[in-house]
Amino acid sequence: MAVNVEINENLVKERSKCTFNVKELTHIFDGGEKLTQERKRLVNAILSVKELQDEVPELYLSYNERYENVVRKGILLHSVLKESKDKYGEPDPRILRRAQGMVFRDMSPFLLHLGMFILTIEGQGTPEQQSEWLPKAHSMQIIGSYAQTELGHGTFLRGLETTATYDASTEEFILNSPKLTSYKWWPGGLGSTINHCIIAAQLHINGKNHGIHMFMVQIRDLETHVPLPGIKVGEIGPKLGFQTVNNGFLGFNNFRIPRKNMLMKNSQVLKDGTYIKGPNDKLTYGTMVRVRVNILSDVALYVAKAATIAVRYSAVRHQSQLKAKEPETQILDYLTQQHKLFIAIATSHAYVSTHAWMIKKYFNVVEDLGRGKLDHLPELHALTCCLKATSSRDGATLVEQCRLACGGHGYMASSNLPILYGLATATVTYEGEHTVVLLQTARYLMKAWTAALQGKVLAPSVSYLADGMKFKNQMWQNTPEGIIEGLYHVAAGKIKDAFNVIQKHVKAGKDYEDAWNLASVQLIKASEAHSRAILCDGYWRETIRNSMTTSTGVASVSGYLAQLYIVYWGLETSGDLLMYSNISREDVTVLKEKYEVLLTLIRPNAVALVDAFDFYDQDLHSTLGSYDGRVYERLMEDALKSPLNKEPVNQSFHKYLKPFIKSSKL
Amino acid sequence: MAVNVEINENLVKERSKCTFNVKELTHIFDGGEKLTQERKRLVNAILSVKELQDEVPELYLSYNERYENVVRKGILLHSVLKESKDKYGEPDPRILRRAQGMVFRDMSPFLLHLGMFILTIEGQGTPEQQSEWLPKAHSMQIIGSYAQTELGHGTFLRGLETTATYDASTEEFILNSPKLTSYKWWPGGLGSTINHCIIAAQLHINGKNHGIHMFMVQIRDLETHVPLPGIKVGEIGPKLGFQTVNNGFLGFNNFRIPRKNMLMKNSQVLKDGTYIKGPNDKLTYGTMVRVRVNILSDVALYVAKAATIAVRYSAVRHQSQLKAKEPETQILDYLTQQHKLFIAIATSHAYVSTHAWMIKKYFNVVEDLGRGKLDHLPELHALTCCLKATSSRDGATLVEQCRLACGGHGYMASSNLPILYGLATATVTYEGEHTVVLLQTARYLMKAWTAALQGKVLAPSVSYLADGMKFKNQMWQNTPEGIIEGLYHVAAGKIKDAFNVIQKHVKAGKDYEDAWNLASVQLIKASEAHSRAILCDGYWRETIRNSMTTSTGVASVSGYLAQLYIVYWGLETSGDLLMYSNISREDVTVLKEKYEVLLTLIRPNAVALVDAFDFYDQDLHSTLGSYDGRVYERLMEDALKSPLNKEPVNQSFHKYLKPFIKSSKL
Repeated sequence: MAVNVEINENLVKERSKCTFNVKELTHIFDGGEKLTQERKRLVNAILSVKELQDEVPELYLSYNERYENVVRKGILLHSVLKESKDKYGEPDPRILRRAQGMVFRDMSPFLLHLGMFILTIEGQGTPEQQSEWLPKAHSMQIIGSYAQTELGHGTFLRGLETTATYDASTEEFILNSPKLTSYKWWPGGLGSTINHCIIAAQLHINGKNHGIHMFMVQIRDLETHVPLPGIKVGEIGPKLGFQTVNNGFLGFNNFRIPRKNMLMKNSQVLKDGTYIKGPNDKLTYGTMVRVRVNILSDVALYVAKAATIAVRYSAVRHQSQLKAKEPETQILDYLTQQHKLFIAIATSHAYVSTHAWMIKKYFNVVEDLGRGKLDHLPELHALTCCLKATSSRDGATLVEQCRLACGGHGYMASSNLPILYGLATATVTYEGEHTVVLLQTARYLMKAWTAALQGKVLAPSVSYLADGMKFKNQMWQNTPEGIIEGLYHVAAGKIKDAFNVIQKHVKAGKDYEDAWNLASVQLIKASEAHSRAILCDGYWRETIRNSMTTSTGVASVSGYLAQLYIVYWGLETSGDLLMYSNISREDVTVLKEKYEVLLTLIRPNAVALVDAFDFYDQDLHSTLGSYDGRVYERLMEDALKSPLNKEPVNQSFHKYLKPFIKSSKL
Repeated sequence: MAVNVEINENLVKERSKCTFNVKELTHIFDGGEKLTQERKRLVNAILSVKELQDEVPELYLSYNERYENVVRKGILLHSVLKESKDKYGEPDPRILRRAQGMVFRDMSPFLLHLGMFILTIEGQGTPEQQSEWLPKAHSMQIIGSYAQTELGHGTFLRGLETTATYDASTEEFILNSPKLTSYKWWPGGLGSTINHCIIAAQLHINGKNHGIHMFMVQIRDLETHVPLPGIKVGEIGPKLGFQTVNNGFLGFNNFRIPRKNMLMKNSQVLKDGTYIKGPNDKLTYGTMVRVRVNILSDVALYVAKAATIAVRYSAVRHQSQLKAKEPETQILDYLTQQHKLFIAIATSHAYVSTHAWMIKKYFNVVEDLGRGKLDHLPELHALTCCLKATSSRDGATLVEQCRLACGGHGYMASSNLPILYGLATATVTYEGEHTVVLLQTARYLMKAWTAALQGKVLAPSVSYLADGMKFKNQMWQNTPEGIIEGLYHVAAGKIKDAFNVIQKHVKAGKDYEDAWNLASVQLIKASEAHSRAILCDGYWRETIRNSMTTSTGVASVSGYLAQLYIVYWGLETSGDLLMYSNISREDVTVLKEKYEVLLTLIRPNAVALVDAFDFYDQDLHSTLGSYDGRVYERLMEDALKSPLNKEPVNQSFHKYLKPFIKSSKL
């Protein structure tokens, strides 16, 4: 970490209190010591290139300068990554994301090139297409994006309006955007950066619509970068976050592409226009499922960064007096502050755990799919939907909670907390809008409930529904296991209630779809409850499992964090527990005490716990969160870089203010 | 409203379904027909000055251009306001805020001049000081800010480090910022705009510290605007919001000001250095209390704007099919969408109601204070603390909920929802940090509980604490009144629990202060519960009262909104109700049904309800929320203004991308 800098004395004291092996916990968070080493190697390569760090904070640059700066850095980073890849092979996706974060405070305009563009060629291109496009894409001779959403359509894929009409006479597809709402809208890098794009469009052959298919489209001249005739392309303007990702719009006017540009791994169009439907459309779900699983680990990083910034700041900051005659209190000593921050630390670990077992599950299902076995796909899909929804929402809330815990200074862009929130909250909407994906899980849960009623065998993640009807009179246990069991009872109860609401409306004569809509607020809550039980359960099991192999110090502090997470959610949903489990009012009071004790137990290790996330200052981009704790110095240093501070008097004084003051004197 | 424009057909249809008199509800929201007229008069004056509207969206301007643009507009607006004031007198503060919002998408750099600077002279200056400074301030010959917070201190006033040391030999105060943390930090307009400032500093006379006092300080030369010698001033850099308010920092190095520059309405310093303590320091609380009360009405406007944007967009936007063979559904028809949006509409009305009775209460207390009667001040202070905390937090959450309800397009800056969130969330921190003010109310509640235990007479807002111990076995009523009673039981229960936790720790040998800290998570929840009961109670009573004089249509829809608000919070806190009231599980199920029915009852009037807030398009600054519903057209029009879209190829292609592509080919 930092060397030869003076560390704030509060942080020195905090670190001296640590009771566990910080490096050991870092390895767990990274997914193993090997991954930590791999990460550090890549990070050091990045840090050795000075031009990858900004001298002037991004927000002081003009709109175009900001964009130009990230293009410059994106290309530099590509070279560093390539060198590393040539030497050591493809890095783990999580390491890649952390590497990106050291260069871009926000996001790279090449994000979708490296992500969706290449992934889709790999997933949906034929071997010939792959061998033609992938080498060019990897060496960035073609730079691409992935264009699915339109101005008028996001969630509802079938509603997309862009058309690709086959012309057998020339063996071409003709692309069109019939209306304003048909314009592609959002793809990263599309605005001014890329020259190719994968387009989702309705395939029309001889007047028949065969639904959405993917097409490789060159949109700009490779020599001049000028958009090709028939293409209208541009950037969509500023957003809450992702400012430097260069999101764009794209419209087609009779734009022709060769037949071989349709991605034909699954369905195909022959020369004469014959359409051959692929063996299984569900295979294309794979990419989406994986992207959603990875959101868990992205969110874990956002929350961990926010927690690191807020905990270190809270160790340095002193405010008010707990006791009249004592010095001002370190704000980390206020229980209310611990209440805001420690749950964020625990949540990062919970998501890393959950991500680990979900990825395993994902690869098992992919293996099955390869053998034509589709049985586990619905369960996996339902799981990723609700976990994506819950983790993104909770994650964004926690980042914001950390920001608010830093008071006014958390509102400063230089704290980086506002930018982290912009990134975290985006995950709530992208790759499956929050409410929409919760309802997808709910659909699965309603089917599972029906199956449970019929006494059928249930998939593992919903097997508790069989128990949910049985174990009603068991004694409440105020233990992690007891709370987890209670949370499963809550989920089962909410699933049952929502099911009954639908039935009630159907019996009253409503269509099933209308009944579904009328029950949808409860359906969402059922999905959330299901997700909550699974998160707590998975995290606890993983913690127990890890504790078998870790040192006592790490096992102990990890155990406190996991207990905190479970007790926190027990208390947050105590109303549901009182409603659906056998918890008593007295048990809730005991839980509150337990929670307060856990905060106190975690307190001495708070700074060491965020140190264990092992973020470099260049990761955090924060005046409040740096390892050395030079909070106030950095706030001032950053402010002094403002262009307004480069001049003693801004021209607006002479132009507007002075003439006005003179005139008002008269 | 808008004339001669084509209105989106969905909005036309929605408006035709309205069952109440929209103007009548507008008058209620404005606080009376007279205020509506006054507002429209001022708004029309503003709209008549074209230069007050931006041609290029603010976010496309460079850092300095943005600042210069708001200085220009601020001065223009001042002239419009002055003309109106000369003709019609001082406008209501709420109207002034709405007028500001039509000119500044964000905030004005003159915000603190018009607000705190002038208010503080009025509140704490002697008659002589007022007659010297006020005319100059009103005509903007002196432009000021109010500097209290420092880099190292926000919440804890007594900890401020700036010193004002009296030098009797020259009859001057010498101002100093002893450390980096003593620099003033945050005051609006301080960065580059103002030439005077009111400074909070520790008053030292002959080595004795007399605590915080206020001083009028000139910081820049009136002719040249250059900072005076001994002053270090600048702007603090970008933030989450308030980007154009020009927040600044300020440090002093032996800077001298005349004795008469101390604001001496209360305490005084005589020529020879004799210090005369004012009769009552509490009098200065007045301004702060009023500012906090006004936050309720600010938040009501933020939430109402967000609701207007999101409801109109949801009426225009169609996505997915509720039924397979039908066209795509208007997203406003999804119950989940109604669940997100209607509570925002109701909350705006709740806060306007609460603001109205709090302002009355405030003026009563001020009248009392004038007569030397201080009895009601603690209750008022406790009330404003928790209402400020709850309304700011809920308000920010609801603005964000409306933004998220607009999916990806809500993430666009041009929707204005991200900017509204930046403004709304700032209220959580400023003028009393959320947790800090909740704990202030908690302190009052602990005293009230002690008084209740001793059978003493309680202030009206806590009189329920006497009942809280008595009426335990009454039957639960699933009515607004029943829920409100339940919420009071919850508050009483949580107050009692927190009290007992403190007692438990004290009995175990802890100091009271440590016990307080250990109970503080529960103390905060007690404060929130108290606030929640009062908000529901006040809103319901005001709704009933209004219904006596309104038409049936307005009474009916207002009644639905108030019921929705109360049932919503009943359900959100159902765990607390199950814990502390006599509600049963079955009652909760009935409440859920009731809630769903209310959503359905409000649905036909949704668009009319947001129309009744009567925001002009220039108020909303939103591509998604305009009266005509031209959502997609505006999104594209706004994007096309991006400087990146002014050039077919950005220079970064030639500078970075092309050389790189060429090199990677080799």
